[in-house]
Amino acid sequence: MRNLKLTLQYDGTDFCGWQLQPRGRTVQGVFEAAAARLFQKPVRAVASGRTDSGVHALAQVVNLKTENPLGLSKIRLGLNRYLPPDVRVLHVEEAEASFHARFDAVRRVYEYRITTVPVAVGRQYTWFCRYRLNVHDMAVAAEFLQGDHVFEAFSKINPEEEHYRCVVESAAWKASGTTLFFEICANRFLHGMVRLIVGTLVDAGRGKIPPAFVGEILASRDRSLAGAAAPAQGLFLKEVMYD
Amino acid sequence: MRNLKLTLQYDGTDFCGWQLQPRGRTVQGVFEAAAARLFQKPVRAVASGRTDSGVHALAQVVNLKTENPLGLSKIRLGLNRYLPPDVRVLHVEEAEASFHARFDAVRRVYEYRITTVPVAVGRQYTWFCRYRLNVHDMAVAAEFLQGDHVFEAFSKINPEEEHYRCVVESAAWKASGTTLFFEICANRFLHGMVRLIVGTLVDAGRGKIPPAFVGEILASRDRSLAGAAAPAQGLFLKEVMYD
Repeated sequence: MRNLKLTLQYDGTDFCGWQLQPRGRTVQGVFEAAAARLFQKPVRAVASGRTDSGVHALAQVVNLKTENPLGLSKIRLGLNRYLPPDVRVLHVEEAEASFHARFDAVRRVYEYRITTVPVAVGRQYTWFCRYRLNVHDMAVAAEFLQGDHVFEAFSKINPEEEHYRCVVESAAWKASGTTLFFEICANRFLHGMVRLIVGTLVDAGRGKIPPAFVGEILASRDRSLAGAAAPAQGLFLKEVMYD
Repeated sequence: MRNLKLTLQYDGTDFCGWQLQPRGRTVQGVFEAAAARLFQKPVRAVASGRTDSGVHALAQVVNLKTENPLGLSKIRLGLNRYLPPDVRVLHVEEAEASFHARFDAVRRVYEYRITTVPVAVGRQYTWFCRYRLNVHDMAVAAEFLQGDHVFEAFSKINPEEEHYRCVVESAAWKASGTTLFFEICANRFLHGMVRLIVGTLVDAGRGKIPPAFVGEILASRDRSLAGAAAPAQGLFLKEVMYD
C-alpha cells in the first residue's frame, strides 16, 4: 500500500470549506471524486487541517493511501485533469506508511490580506477594509500574541477541542502599496482563530481598542472581548511544515 | 458643464470587453448605467481605448460630461455603490473642458502574466503556459519590438485603422517565482496587438522560432507569420498617460 503526500492549491470562493458535507461543494469532496476516478477505487484524503467556507489554500497538504502503481507525475497530471480549475495539485510524493497529514504537521502558516482601497481585480482574495488603519498599532498589538498562550478568547466554541493552548512563533504585518499582509505561524490553530485575531487587530488599527488591550483579551480567555471575525475571503493557508 | 476624468479598475472575466454592445455585458454598459442612475440622466463615457472580451484593467481612464454638481468623493462612492463588484472607480477628478480620454492619451502600458505552473488562486488573471520557456530568448526577442515600427504583422485586420505605425518605448520580461510578467509601453496599440506579440514571444521562448525571427515577422508586415494570440485572461491595461 502506497501512502502519497500531495500539495494542493485551491480557491475557496466557491467551496463550503475543505471537509466533506452531505450537501454543499467541498474541496475534500471534489478531490476524493477526482482521485476515485483516477484510481478507479474509493479514496479517503486526510488534510493537515480543515479550512472554513471561503478560505483559500496556497499549499494545503493531504495524504491518501492507494495500491495503484501509477507514477507520481502521472498522478499529478491525472488528478489535475479530473479536478475543477479551482483546485490544483502542485506536487505529489511518496511518504512513509506512517505519515499522517494532520497529526504529523508541526507548524502551519496562515496569511491574511487586507486592501485599504477598493479593488476589482483580485477582490476574491482580500478584505477591503474601509477604516483608516494605523499599521504601527496593528504591529504592536500583534506582538502580544506571540508565544505559548491559551487562545480561548480567539476561538469559536468547539466541543471537540481538548484544549486551547497554541504556540505562536510569529505574528506580523507587512505593508506593500495599498495591501496589508498579516502572517501568523503556530504549531496549531483553533477554529476561526486567525479571522478573530485579524478582526481584533483591525480594531486596534482603527483605534477602537488600544494595542495593549489585545494582550488583555488573550489573558481573559473571554470570547466576548475579541473583535468580529474578519471575512473568510482574505484568508490563505500558506504553508504546512513537517519534521 | 463639467468634464470628469475617472480611473476605473475592472476584472474582465465576466465582460464582453469595454465597448457597448447590443447584447452581452460590457464595462461601458454597466458603467454608463451606474452613472445614469447616480446623475439621473443618460451618460456617455469615453475610455482611453477599448479592451477586448476577458481583458482586465488595473487603471483604465475614462471621461464623461455632466451638469450634476455632486462633489468628487460623493461621485466616486456613489458610482461604486451602483457598480457591480467587478468594476471599481479608483479616482475622480475635474478635467479641462477639452480633455478627451482617448485622443489625449500619449502613452499606454499593458502587462501580460504567464505562470509556468498550474494555479488555482488567481487563475483568472494569468495564462498557465505548459511549455518550458527560455526567458532569456523571450527577452532578446522582445527587444526587436522596441522603437518606431509598422506593427501590421501583430494586429487583427481592422478596416477602421488608418495606419499600423506604433512607437514602442519599452517591451520587457520580468520573472518572479513561477510567474513571468511582460510589460509593454507604446504611444498606441492596435487591435489584438499585445496578445499576438505575447503569443509570438512565447514561440521564441519555447524554441519554435529563433528570437531574431521576431524582427523578421515585424519587418514582413505579414500577419500569417506571427504566433497565435495569447489568451485574454493574462492581459491587463496597466496605465494610461497624458501630458
